[in-house]
Amino acid sequence: MARPLHGGNLVWAADLAGCPLSQILDFSASINPWGPPNSAIAAIQAHLGELRAYPDPQYQALRQALSQFHQISPDWILPGNGSAELLTWAGRDLAALTTTTLVTPAFGDYWRALGAFGARVVTCPLMSMLSQTPRSEVQGSETETHQLTQALGLSAQGTSAPTGLLLNNPHNPTGQLFLQQTLLPLLKQFALVVVDEAFMDFLPPEQQQSLLPVIQDYSNLVILRSLTKFYSLPGLRLGYAIAHPERLRRWQQWRDPWPVNSLAVAAARAVLSDRPFQQKTWDWLGEARLQLWQGLSQLPGLQPYWSAANFLLVASHQSSSELQRQLLKSDQILIRDCLSFPELGDRYFRVAVRSQVDNQRLLEALAQVLSS
Amino acid sequence: MARPLHGGNLVWAADLAGCPLSQILDFSASINPWGPPNSAIAAIQAHLGELRAYPDPQYQALRQALSQFHQISPDWILPGNGSAELLTWAGRDLAALTTTTLVTPAFGDYWRALGAFGARVVTCPLMSMLSQTPRSEVQGSETETHQLTQALGLSAQGTSAPTGLLLNNPHNPTGQLFLQQTLLPLLKQFALVVVDEAFMDFLPPEQQQSLLPVIQDYSNLVILRSLTKFYSLPGLRLGYAIAHPERLRRWQQWRDPWPVNSLAVAAARAVLSDRPFQQKTWDWLGEARLQLWQGLSQLPGLQPYWSAANFLLVASHQSSSELQRQLLKSDQILIRDCLSFPELGDRYFRVAVRSQVDNQRLLEALAQVLSS
Repeated sequence: MARPLHGGNLVWAADLAGCPLSQILDFSASINPWGPPNSAIAAIQAHLGELRAYPDPQYQALRQALSQFHQISPDWILPGNGSAELLTWAGRDLAALTTTTLVTPAFGDYWRALGAFGARVVTCPLMSMLSQTPRSEVQGSETETHQLTQALGLSAQGTSAPTGLLLNNPHNPTGQLFLQQTLLPLLKQFALVVVDEAFMDFLPPEQQQSLLPVIQDYSNLVILRSLTKFYSLPGLRLGYAIAHPERLRRWQQWRDPWPVNSLAVAAARAVLSDRPFQQKTWDWLGEARLQLWQGLSQLPGLQPYWSAANFLLVASHQSSSELQRQLLKSDQILIRDCLSFPELGDRYFRVAVRSQVDNQRLLEALAQVLSS
Repeated sequence: MARPLHGGNLVWAADLAGCPLSQILDFSASINPWGPPNSAIAAIQAHLGELRAYPDPQYQALRQALSQFHQISPDWILPGNGSAELLTWAGRDLAALTTTTLVTPAFGDYWRALGAFGARVVTCPLMSMLSQTPRSEVQGSETETHQLTQALGLSAQGTSAPTGLLLNNPHNPTGQLFLQQTLLPLLKQFALVVVDEAFMDFLPPEQQQSLLPVIQDYSNLVILRSLTKFYSLPGLRLGYAIAHPERLRRWQQWRDPWPVNSLAVAAARAVLSDRPFQQKTWDWLGEARLQLWQGLSQLPGLQPYWSAANFLLVASHQSSSELQRQLLKSDQILIRDCLSFPELGDRYFRVAVRSQVDNQRLLEALAQVLSS
């Protein structure tokens, strides 16, 4: 069976581990371990009777709920079949520009979406700018953010032709958080800026560095958000884009009229108002991430990067695909190798932050494998 | 509230009828009244626990189930988020050709998919070729099919440039069935033939005129199928394309990796082997459609067309949007006006075939409205 390029391909992992799919302890997909919230499952159950009807092509109720959640007018919001579906159309807009600058290492699906419409890509490497010291996310990331935005700004200079920028914030797979204030100048330098904020909701509201507060000032800004990572519903498919209504109307004409299924609509409306689940996640993440970071940095040959998201990138002296194979066979634990990121290759891996019990199991299994 | 362009927009209808959405008797969406089958709902319930995981990007289990159902190799099958999602990519392939011939009146989403990538459309009008006499589907449609395929063949002549063809079989909104044998010559005349067979499964197997049996002989043929109409699951979104593996691999690179949600996968696998539901639907449709056809043709000023599908197109002396409005207000019955089909306009409407009790309610309400 071919090695999967995306985290979370449990079919492949269970085959290698020789165990049922359900027994894999999955650190490869960056999904909230506390979900799905009961509110989501209850909403799905309550709306099974609606499967007989087509979804409302305007998705009015869903857009209204998202509008209230973000305090943004509904016509600036377009729901999609996962943010990956919306990335396709962002890729089409970016491909119409002279070049698109992509911060690397980049999520594999960015290359797919840009390639789908023949975008010309200029890369801006991030790794040399990153620190591996733990710190409070907001204060500490100023230096890196400043360096990166300077480098990005340079990539837009020297041409009068319109250029685009695609980055995620927090960045995947490094977990790096870019500060809102240092991103703002980029909106004047690029003809189109697409910011994938799929992991932003893992930060407590007061720490978030979203560009949402300025969206209505920039018709050249697109923000992509996901509901499937924070609420652990990747099987349901639900994301949304926030951008100028004219751009969203254009995308709407490119894609089919019913991209979001009715059960995803029901679940989304329920989870957006599930404050206890949100608070529980924020309360857990800060401490669990710090403990996992500390545990990893004490293991021989491993150096975790600091992260604002619910995952950690780890540099490894040993081959990470070999580590992955051994962890699967010995402990049914799946980590994310980084072979699909050419800038990282076999000396890095990524792990999700899970419950403290699970994290401890990972640390012990790693200690065992590294010492054998 | 704006009038919807697609059948089944119940939000708009309930607003006009002044009743809850659930009280609308919906003849506008061409959905099997007997579904969803219990097997689908049970499968969804049983797989709620899988929402925590990403779907398998290869959709191996689903493709295997479809492969067994159709006796076609799995690599010739690509599942999609409703057949409308796959139509988008068919539209992109068609747009690469010099022109695309479209049989009109055409489902509105065909215009969207062709327009999305700038396809040049040549229309081939169907209405003048249709008979309104009832008959057994297969025998009687030979004349119309022959006329149409001759007209289509002519549209491909006189140019050496590669041209495309997009049609549905049975045709929506007329219900016309084209015979397999008369469609075959078109595969030699067009560089790409896309046949939307969204309603083909409503015909008993021995009456179907699918091009599936010849798919592996033609790399220029794409067949689109839906599971949401026959199994009454339009809220869940599930369709699939059958075409040459190279074409499907190309489409796969254009779209996101997880277009089909996990619950749709579970439901699909269940319903494909639900023979009792399939048989019940075939047993009901033939007789219910004939009775509805007869009832409609006895009403003053109405002339239904004969149909091989689960809906009837009706020519009306009166304004059909006015009829629609009156039926909503007097009886909470929603019929499909044809204003979105420029070739039909306000003198046609379409109704789904429902249970004999519902059909009777429609006939009585129509009789009342037409005589008032």
